[in-house]
Amino acid sequence: MTIDLNADLGEGYGIWTLGDDLALLDVVTSANVACGFHAGDPLTIRRTCAAAVERGVRIGAQVSYRDLAGFGRREMEVDPEELCAEVLYQLAAVDGVARTVGGRVSYVKPHGALYNRVCRDPEQAEAVVAAVADYDGSLPVLGLPGSVVHRVAAGRGLPVVAEAFADRAYTPAGTLVPRREPGAVIHDPETVVARAVRMATDRTVTAVDGSEVPVDARSVCVHGDTPGAVRLARAVRDGLVRAGVAVEAFT
Amino acid sequence: MTIDLNADLGEGYGIWTLGDDLALLDVVTSANVACGFHAGDPLTIRRTCAAAVERGVRIGAQVSYRDLAGFGRREMEVDPEELCAEVLYQLAAVDGVARTVGGRVSYVKPHGALYNRVCRDPEQAEAVVAAVADYDGSLPVLGLPGSVVHRVAAGRGLPVVAEAFADRAYTPAGTLVPRREPGAVIHDPETVVARAVRMATDRTVTAVDGSEVPVDARSVCVHGDTPGAVRLARAVRDGLVRAGVAVEAFT
Amino acid sequence: MTIDLNADLGEGYGIWTLGDDLALLDVVTSANVACGFHAGDPLTIRRTCAAAVERGVRIGAQVSYRDLAGFGRREMEVDPEELCAEVLYQLAAVDGVARTVGGRVSYVKPHGALYNRVCRDPEQAEAVVAAVADYDGSLPVLGLPGSVVHRVAAGRGLPVVAEAFADRAYTPAGTLVPRREPGAVIHDPETVVARAVRMATDRTVTAVDGSEVPVDARSVCVHGDTPGAVRLARAVRDGLVRAGVAVEAFT
Amino acid sequence: MTIDLNADLGEGYGIWTLGDDLALLDVVTSANVACGFHAGDPLTIRRTCAAAVERGVRIGAQVSYRDLAGFGRREMEVDPEELCAEVLYQLAAVDGVARTVGGRVSYVKPHGALYNRVCRDPEQAEAVVAAVADYDGSLPVLGLPGSVVHRVAAGRGLPVVAEAFADRAYTPAGTLVPRREPGAVIHDPETVVARAVRMATDRTVTAVDGSEVPVDARSVCVHGDTPGAVRLARAVRDGLVRAGVAVEAFT
Repeated sequence: MTIDLNADLGEGYGIWTLGDDLALLDVVTSANVACGFHAGDPLTIRRTCAAAVERGVRIGAQVSYRDLAGFGRREMEVDPEELCAEVLYQLAAVDGVARTVGGRVSYVKPHGALYNRVCRDPEQAEAVVAAVADYDGSLPVLGLPGSVVHRVAAGRGLPVVAEAFADRAYTPAGTLVPRREPGAVIHDPETVVARAVRMATDRTVTAVDGSEVPVDARSVCVHGDTPGAVRLARAVRDGLVRAGVAVEAFT
Repeated sequence: MTIDLNADLGEGYGIWTLGDDLALLDVVTSANVACGFHAGDPLTIRRTCAAAVERGVRIGAQVSYRDLAGFGRREMEVDPEELCAEVLYQLAAVDGVARTVGGRVSYVKPHGALYNRVCRDPEQAEAVVAAVADYDGSLPVLGLPGSVVHRVAAGRGLPVVAEAFADRAYTPAGTLVPRREPGAVIHDPETVVARAVRMATDRTVTAVDGSEVPVDARSVCVHGDTPGAVRLARAVRDGLVRAGVAVEAFT
Repeated sequence: MTIDLNADLGEGYGIWTLGDDLALLDVVTSANVACGFHAGDPLTIRRTCAAAVERGVRIGAQVSYRDLAGFGRREMEVDPEELCAEVLYQLAAVDGVARTVGGRVSYVKPHGALYNRVCRDPEQAEAVVAAVADYDGSLPVLGLPGSVVHRVAAGRGLPVVAEAFADRAYTPAGTLVPRREPGAVIHDPETVVARAVRMATDRTVTAVDGSEVPVDARSVCVHGDTPGAVRLARAVRDGLVRAGVAVEAFT
Repeated sequence: MTIDLNADLGEGYGIWTLGDDLALLDVVTSANVACGFHAGDPLTIRRTCAAAVERGVRIGAQVSYRDLAGFGRREMEVDPEELCAEVLYQLAAVDGVARTVGGRVSYVKPHGALYNRVCRDPEQAEAVVAAVADYDGSLPVLGLPGSVVHRVAAGRGLPVVAEAFADRAYTPAGTLVPRREPGAVIHDPETVVARAVRMATDRTVTAVDGSEVPVDARSVCVHGDTPGAVRLARAVRDGLVRAGVAVEAFT
C-alpha cells in the first residue's frame, strides 16, 4: 500500500507569504510549486524548489491562469492557443529553475479555477495537455479521476495520476460535493485522518449517503495555508504511516 | 570575414505590437527574444521563436528587469539574489518555449536598463552571469566589449560575444557616445551601412574626433521598431553581403 | 437632430500605442478613456484627457476587468464586491486625473468582455452600477439599449445613454448580429456612413432581413485602431454633418 | 501636547495580507493606505478606508513606485512626468474610493523606496509634489523633517507635516542612523515608548552619542507588520496617553 501526499507550495509573492512551506515540505512527498501566474515570484520558486530537493520531495508545476490579483481562482475565457503558450511558459520556467537546484518538474497540476475548468471543458483541457505534451510527453498530469483533462491527457498518451481529498465529502457517484453545499468540507481532524487511511488502504470512501464509493487515487491532496492545516496534514501522514501505508511520491 | 546581425524581437504584449518582426527576421541572424518581463507574452514568444526557427535565425533570451510599464528602460535597485532568480526564470521559460518549436536559446542578452547597468555594476552583473551559468554554462553573453558583465562572465568561464552599433558614434576610447550628446546617433543610411561594413571588414570605426578605433565585434546590433529601421537593417545586411562579408550567427 | 460619436481612446500602455488618438479626437465628441486595467498607463491617461479637453471632447471612464495581457477581452468570474471596488478605483483614478487638466469623467462605458457580460449578467451589472452610483449618481452609463446593465442602472436612478453601431448588422429584433456570423461587420464605407445618417435622422436601421428596425441611440460608436478606421470615423462624421445632424456630446 | 500616530495600512494584495490592520487601526490616528502600486487591491483599499472611517482614523494616500513584486522597496529611475502621473492616479483612486465610504484622502505619504528617494532627489520630489498640488493644493505631505520633498512642497505652498521614528536611532545632526548600521533599530519596547513620549513632550530625542537632539514632529510612525509590532504600537499609544499627550490626527 502506497500513497503520495501533494500540497500547494511556494504560493507567496514578493513580500507576501502563504502558509508555512518548510513545515509542509516535511509532510508531503509532492510539491505543487506555484509558477508565477497566480503566485510565486522567481526567488520564491527557486527557494521552494531547493527546499523540496533537500527533502526528497518531488516538484510539480502548478500552472494557472494569469491572475495575481485573484490568485488564479477566477475562471477566464482564455483563447486555447494562448492558454497553451501560457502553461508552457510556466512549466518551462519552473522546470528550468528547479534544475539549477538539483531537481526538475516531474508532473503538472493545474491550479484553482483552471483546475476546475479543465475537469469539464475539453477545449481548455486540450490546451493544457498540449502544452505538457509539447514540453515533455512523459510528465504526468495530476488531477481528479474521471476528469476531462485526464481523458484528454490519456488520449494523447500522457500519464495521468488521480488524486483524492480526505477533507471533502463525496457523492455516491464518487465526485466531490460542491463547496457551496453544507458539509462539503470535513473539519474534524480524526475523521479526515481516518478517511485518508481508508482511501489508501481500502481504496474507498464513505459518501454523504453512507454508501461506500471506490476511490482510485495514487495521491491525496493536503493543505497548508493555516497553522491548523499543516497540523492536519502532519496528522494525515502520521495516520497513514501508523496504518502501514508507505507515503511515497508517484514519480 | 563573418559578422552576425542581432536585433530585439517579440517585443509586443497581448494586443500591442512593436516593429515588424517578420520583416526583421528576414534580415538578422540572431533574435533577442523578449522574455515576458519588459515585453513578450507567452504566445508572442512562441510565435517569434517559431518564425526564427523557420528562417534559421538563432534565438537569444533578452532578459530584463520586471517592468512592463517602463519597457525595462528604468534602472532598478534589485537585490542580486532576486535578480538572479528573475533572469533564470526568464531564460528557462523562453528556452523551454523555443524547444517546443524546434529551437533553443543559444545566447543571452540583457535588455534596456539592465543592459546598461551590468556594463558597469559588478553586483548586478554577477547576478545575471550566475543565472546564465547555473542554467547552462555554455551559453554566451552578448554585450558591449569591455563591459563589466563580460569581464564577470569570462571570469566564470562563460563565453562572451561582443557587439557593435553601426548607428552610434564612438569615442576615441572605443566606447559609445552617450545618447544625450549631440551626434550620438547616426541617421544617414549610407553612413550607417558604410560603418557596418568597415566594422566587419577592417574591424575598425571612425571615432568622433576622426581617429580610427579598433572594434572587435562578432555581432552588429540593428533595430526594427520603425519601418525606416527595418529598411536600414536590410540595407546594412545588403551592404555587408556586397562587401563580401558572410552574415552568419555566432552560435 | 443630434448625435454623439464615441470611441475608445488612450488604449496604449507604456511604450505601446493603439490607433491614432489625436486624429480620432478630432472626430468624436465622447472619448472612452482606458483606465489602466486593460490598457492606459497614468501618463497616457493624463495626456489623452488633456487632448480631449483641448478639443471640447467629453471624457468617459472605460472601465474593464483587470487583464492587461488579454486587453480586457476575456470574460472573468470576478466576485461582485471585488468587481465593484475595481470599477470604482478605475473611475476615481481617471476622474481625478481628468480634473487636473480641466476636465472630468462625465460618463462610464464598460470595456470589452465586461461590456458584453453586463449586457446579460445581472450580478456583474449590479456591481458596475453600484460602483458608478456610489461614486457619482449623476453619471450616465453608456451601453446597448435594452441591456441588463441599462435596466439595472435605471432601476438605481442612474441616467442611461444608448449607443448604436453603424458598422454592425442588426437582427430584426434590433440586436446586433454576433460577430462570428457572416456579414456581422459591415466594411463598405458608404454603407456605414449611410447607416449612421439614418440612425441619427430616421432613428432606424435596415436589419439583415431587409426590415426596418427602430434604433433609439443618442450615440454612435466608431473605431480608431487602424488608419482605415479613423478615415471611416471621419467619413461618418462628415456624412452626419452634411445631412444636417448636429454632432454633439450627450453630456 | 498633541501627537499623531501614523502607520502603513491596507498593504495586502488579493489573497495575501500583511499585518493586523484592524488591530492597528485601533491604535493609530492616521492610516497610510496603500494605493495599488506596491500593495493594495481595490477591495482591500475600500475595506481599509471603511474601517478607518468607522474609527475616526484619517486616511492618507501611501503612493509608491509601480512595483508589486518588490513591494515598492526598489528605487527606480522613473521619468518625472510619468512619476507625477502615477502618483496622481494613485492619489485620485484612493481618494475616490475613500469618499464612497464617508472619508477622503487628507494627506499624502510616499512609500518605501520612493519615500527615501524624495528625501534627497529634487527631480522625483518635484514630480510627487506636482501631483499632489495638481490634485488638491491643501493636502499635506507627511515626511521627514528637512527632507528635499518637504522643501519642494513648502516652496509650492503645500502644507508639510514632519514625522519621527521612536524605534530608530538618531544621529547628533537629527537624521536617522541608516538601517544597515548596528543599533539603527531599537527593539526594546520600554525604550521605544520612552522615546515616543519624549518626542511628544520634550520635542527631543537622545542621539547615538548621548546628545539631546530637537525633534520637531507632529506625527510618530509606528509599524504593524508583525504581532509584536502591533503590541509595541499599542504600548506607544498607551505611554503617550499616560504622559498626558493627546493622540490626535494632524488633519
